[in-house]
Amino acid sequence: MAPGRTAGPTDGQDQGVTSATPLDPTTLPLEQKALLLSGQDFWSTPAVEAAGLPSVVLTDGPHGVRRQQGDFDQIGLLESVPATCFPPAVAVGSSWDPEVAERIGAAIGVEARAIGVPVVLGPGVNIKRSPLCGRNFEYYSEDPLLAGVLGAAHVRGQQGEGVGASVKHFAANNQETQRMQVSADVDERTLREIYLPAFERVVTESQPATVMCAYNRVNGVYASQNRWLLTEVLREEWGFRGAVVSDWGAVDDRVAALEAGLDLQMPSDHGAGNQAVVDAVRAGRLAEDVVDRSVARVAALAGLVTEPTDGFDVDAHHALARELAAGCAVLLKNDGDTLPLGSGRRVAVVGEFARTPRFQGGGSSHVNATRVEDALTALRASLTVTFAPGSTLDGSGDAAALRAEAVAAARDAEVAVVFAGLAESDESEGFDRSTLDLPAAQVQLIRAVAAVAPRTVVVLSSGSVVSLEGWHDDVDAVLAGFLLGQAGGAALADLLTGAVDPSGRLAETIPLRLQDTPSYLNFPGEQGHVRYGEGVMVGYRHFETAEVPVRYPFGHGLSYTTFATSDLQVRTNDVDAATVTLTVTNTGERAGRHVVQVYVATTAGPVRRPARELRAFTKVSLAAGESTTVAFELDRRAFAYWDVREHDWVVAAGEHTVQIGDSAADVVAEATVTLAGDAVVPELTLGSSVAEWFGHPVAGPQLLAGFLATMPEGAAEMHEGMLQMIGSMPMRRFAADFGSAIPAAELERLMTAAQAAR
Amino acid sequence: MAPGRTAGPTDGQDQGVTSATPLDPTTLPLEQKALLLSGQDFWSTPAVEAAGLPSVVLTDGPHGVRRQQGDFDQIGLLESVPATCFPPAVAVGSSWDPEVAERIGAAIGVEARAIGVPVVLGPGVNIKRSPLCGRNFEYYSEDPLLAGVLGAAHVRGQQGEGVGASVKHFAANNQETQRMQVSADVDERTLREIYLPAFERVVTESQPATVMCAYNRVNGVYASQNRWLLTEVLREEWGFRGAVVSDWGAVDDRVAALEAGLDLQMPSDHGAGNQAVVDAVRAGRLAEDVVDRSVARVAALAGLVTEPTDGFDVDAHHALARELAAGCAVLLKNDGDTLPLGSGRRVAVVGEFARTPRFQGGGSSHVNATRVEDALTALRASLTVTFAPGSTLDGSGDAAALRAEAVAAARDAEVAVVFAGLAESDESEGFDRSTLDLPAAQVQLIRAVAAVAPRTVVVLSSGSVVSLEGWHDDVDAVLAGFLLGQAGGAALADLLTGAVDPSGRLAETIPLRLQDTPSYLNFPGEQGHVRYGEGVMVGYRHFETAEVPVRYPFGHGLSYTTFATSDLQVRTNDVDAATVTLTVTNTGERAGRHVVQVYVATTAGPVRRPARELRAFTKVSLAAGESTTVAFELDRRAFAYWDVREHDWVVAAGEHTVQIGDSAADVVAEATVTLAGDAVVPELTLGSSVAEWFGHPVAGPQLLAGFLATMPEGAAEMHEGMLQMIGSMPMRRFAADFGSAIPAAELERLMTAAQAAR
Repeated sequence: MAPGRTAGPTDGQDQGVTSATPLDPTTLPLEQKALLLSGQDFWSTPAVEAAGLPSVVLTDGPHGVRRQQGDFDQIGLLESVPATCFPPAVAVGSSWDPEVAERIGAAIGVEARAIGVPVVLGPGVNIKRSPLCGRNFEYYSEDPLLAGVLGAAHVRGQQGEGVGASVKHFAANNQETQRMQVSADVDERTLREIYLPAFERVVTESQPATVMCAYNRVNGVYASQNRWLLTEVLREEWGFRGAVVSDWGAVDDRVAALEAGLDLQMPSDHGAGNQAVVDAVRAGRLAEDVVDRSVARVAALAGLVTEPTDGFDVDAHHALARELAAGCAVLLKNDGDTLPLGSGRRVAVVGEFARTPRFQGGGSSHVNATRVEDALTALRASLTVTFAPGSTLDGSGDAAALRAEAVAAARDAEVAVVFAGLAESDESEGFDRSTLDLPAAQVQLIRAVAAVAPRTVVVLSSGSVVSLEGWHDDVDAVLAGFLLGQAGGAALADLLTGAVDPSGRLAETIPLRLQDTPSYLNFPGEQGHVRYGEGVMVGYRHFETAEVPVRYPFGHGLSYTTFATSDLQVRTNDVDAATVTLTVTNTGERAGRHVVQVYVATTAGPVRRPARELRAFTKVSLAAGESTTVAFELDRRAFAYWDVREHDWVVAAGEHTVQIGDSAADVVAEATVTLAGDAVVPELTLGSSVAEWFGHPVAGPQLLAGFLATMPEGAAEMHEGMLQMIGSMPMRRFAADFGSAIPAAELERLMTAAQAAR
Repeated sequence: MAPGRTAGPTDGQDQGVTSATPLDPTTLPLEQKALLLSGQDFWSTPAVEAAGLPSVVLTDGPHGVRRQQGDFDQIGLLESVPATCFPPAVAVGSSWDPEVAERIGAAIGVEARAIGVPVVLGPGVNIKRSPLCGRNFEYYSEDPLLAGVLGAAHVRGQQGEGVGASVKHFAANNQETQRMQVSADVDERTLREIYLPAFERVVTESQPATVMCAYNRVNGVYASQNRWLLTEVLREEWGFRGAVVSDWGAVDDRVAALEAGLDLQMPSDHGAGNQAVVDAVRAGRLAEDVVDRSVARVAALAGLVTEPTDGFDVDAHHALARELAAGCAVLLKNDGDTLPLGSGRRVAVVGEFARTPRFQGGGSSHVNATRVEDALTALRASLTVTFAPGSTLDGSGDAAALRAEAVAAARDAEVAVVFAGLAESDESEGFDRSTLDLPAAQVQLIRAVAAVAPRTVVVLSSGSVVSLEGWHDDVDAVLAGFLLGQAGGAALADLLTGAVDPSGRLAETIPLRLQDTPSYLNFPGEQGHVRYGEGVMVGYRHFETAEVPVRYPFGHGLSYTTFATSDLQVRTNDVDAATVTLTVTNTGERAGRHVVQVYVATTAGPVRRPARELRAFTKVSLAAGESTTVAFELDRRAFAYWDVREHDWVVAAGEHTVQIGDSAADVVAEATVTLAGDAVVPELTLGSSVAEWFGHPVAGPQLLAGFLATMPEGAAEMHEGMLQMIGSMPMRRFAADFGSAIPAAELERLMTAAQAAR
């Protein structure tokens, strides 16, 4: 391939046919319609000439275009057309910067159009429920707001270039173990507050061309056949107008899936599903309307098909990948200003990852990078570097000798920089990890180096969180790069040398122990089910609420400068929304970027709330000494919880505290406001409890007066004791069994009065 | 009332009528049958003269007979006939001694017959899911084996005296908050392994006359209407032959309850439910057979009615209460052999509880004790005692002055003994606690005393676990009495002075923090549901599995002597049962009792197992220097887990370790055996996963051979990668979508072969 520009599709697949007067596809024969609703092969829909519909290619993203070369490899293990490998989602999450996500999306759009791909599958906005999930590198965060904002930006960027996106994997696909069968057993509030909001934001803000349904079951029903998810929530509530495509092989019962709201089955199932659809319609078991509805949606994807453009600027995209990667890495620790490394210093660079970067995850998203830049080469540009690999990636070679060489290099240097992390074989789509530990040989290497080096820096490359225990306190600085894409090595060098100020913040908690993570005993489930036993208490919501100490909290990240927060003001309005303003000042001596994190904390209302929840954020650039005022609009949703009785978002009446955090654990300013809340007048039935009746705003006072009048002396005192003992008794039983002498007609009258007030 | 003996029923209620030729009650008119299936009032069933059926009185236990005097107080707040208040279940649990439970049951039986009560409601064998549950004082343990063994012994003792028992509250009634409405959302394995086994043991070993259904819902269905619980599990699986009685006011829909397996509705609902039953039968909505079945069961209770005996020996029962209580208290800490207190020592006794004992819980089980012995009086018999209350129970008075008086007394003594704990208003049936803390004034008092006393002992009285933090390290000894019944004060004195060796062991973990308890974020639930998110990881199962440090583990308890364990041997047989033998030696210088705790630990099988689980225990008495051999038979159930696919107990093939523990955290001997396990040949369907197909003992090898033969070169290597990526894909999809070229007929043949092997 010529350097600089790469051409479009390389396999000559038919990209489009047109007819002079295309038919409305819903008027096609039933067989043709069914055909259109499944892949013609592994990566494309069939062309339907009569309707003027070209074949639509859908290929994997989300951090680069992965257009497969051949056709045999159906599970993503073979080579694809070269494309830029941008920072994967794990890194983008740490940027806390929607601009990073949007520019990646746009660049992928440009490359997709060059390569001839109208739909690139991504982004993935599943929540990192456990740090063990093998696919965490493809997801942004443990927080749904952060994931949703970044996902929406990615879609905006990609679709701005005319290339359809596919937000995935909808929904509750939070593990790889048993992913094609397991039922994620999740309660309604947890789905609404944790696992759905990122999808909701992407759909409502950016209208992706497609949504990809997940492999797994949700509360027993395959996501691909889950009408509640695919139709009631996605379309009726959120207004999704695109097509729902199956994850590859996620359809179990094609007719049930179609009825539930799935439009396009991928890949081809060689006609079996299509025939089932035809048979079902013919037998009257499936309305042809349902088929037509999906045909229209899938046909609309054809509008995304264009002639391939004349390639893309490989150099410019590589430079972009480098720039964006530098905004993603997180400086976790920097004792004694070990970093940045002053130019000309004598540095021992240790670790094979410095020379052979680990920069993306394994599985279907694996991009054939146009080039790869390593940190070692980049560091040599400005520093005096001695390199020792320390160990080999596959564990071969004489471990002791390699380590001794590294120790010798470290002893002679001013600073040792150890590149450590997980190998591609340690984490991937398809399986989950069983430990957070770094390989033991790497821990040994870090400790050996730190024991002799005057200063030690550890640079981590991994698709998800690794434990820092066993060596954290031995080293002076830690830079977590996660996976930074093909230019990540150069970006790490930029950060280490101070060419760029580190501005990443953790999008996921680094715990002290795997045992401390909220899903520890419920991951990855067993015998076909995984219980989301921790409910909404995911990630920092758990650690902060249960006061479990962590190594580094969600939102943590250092800079080479310092920032101060002041002048926090919160003004609420009559719809329980709020305007938050504050001043951020760069109090250090060089320019830098700061992430302002806005959390809300409350104990108001009938449900257990996390200690605090991220409700807004922004990243600001400030010159040394510069101040700026930052304003946020928090809508009522920022204060609401999901009420399973009302099946709706409810703002509880009472105090809510807006907190500005340097992390989820470090509140630097806060202000409390009192919200009127939603005046929920509960429905009263004979099944409502005695406490609900006596405490009801309408019925309660009348009931109490009548009750006390009928009872002997001392009843007023007994009332308290009674509520304590049998407050939860349904009124039906209280009125009957317990001889409370409240006439049925009176209860009827009060129920009517309560209903009228709703 | 004359001291020494108390007479039988005092309210003159009709206890029985007989007819010359009683009818078969199932031949009664429908209205009469319906009548018989509900209370005639709050505490008794109606007499049916024609059938020769006397009224049957059912009153509260479980730690003493509570025969109410009047009729007005329907929620258990008024006076009852005097009876012995034995140690409540919280203390009996700590005895780890079924003999204690059995003797209490027998004594209650004797008193019930004297008072004219044929059915005493109890014991309660619900599991202590959270230390906050307000009714924990009525339950034995966080462990189902311990609860079940003690509950079965109680029933055996009570029914041995001819008085029916009622094991309660069936099932998953583990909190007071919203208890009459809340749905305990618990998965099948957790129910089977944690919340049902104590009931199962009581039913199968002791056949209680009645089982009392709980107030709450279980997975959405009221326990009173839960056919799975009341009929399928209780009767069809466990062989229960008695009557199911509702908790008072637990019936929501009488007809549905009757159909589900509830027999007797209590208390009277003034005819409404009876009429509903009659109407349902008349309308053909309820089979009269169902009514007859329950009539026969309730009628059988009449066989328990006898003429009241001539009272009971109040003094002997009080002495029994004292003896048994002394076997229940747990010596948690005893630094420097602070205890026992040598006779004649100058002791400052501090705390109102020393003079005014807290000895039972609040609510329906509240016994009108025949007398109450306090520790202060008993201690004065052998020690030189100065007493200072330190504070008042209701917080009145000059706190500083009271504390100063106590400090002065402590300063002048050789040892200070502080009686602390929770007041009756701090915990009760009807509500749950919100904290584990002792009242702040008591913590202040303990610390103030400990700061000046040469030695400080703390004696705790509380219905459930309280936190020891904030003062534990300041004191030398801690004796946890929980609630010891009316002679508890004297029993505590016996233990403090060394007249009796402490032999109690914790039946529940004492955590460091409430936040560490497994149900912390899921208790007591919200909006009508409580998610049992921790699954089987309840109590020590959680702490040991997640390696969460605790203050004192389940099973912990000190003695004034020491014990050693040796010669552990485990022999298994061909049905995966085992014989465990070991030697226990009293290595100290005085006689004492030791609890041998047998745990099983395994990681074999497809489900997450707790780190270890209690599978057998016994309490042995040993003279100083004496050794004994202890033998246990562990049946296969001791090694089994509940398999939700087989809906049965399954022993996993593989290593199982039998551990002898001085507590759940302190294994003193262990031996590993390899069990053959149950040869579960999984069913294979087209919905079974690719991994299940390839890994199947019958189909797998044939499938792999055929698969590899059809694939191009390199397929053998791809097989591994494929299993990793799509191992959980249902075979149906793999065979279709992924073009695996496995013919449908071949799959059919393999499914048949697999089925044949099952």
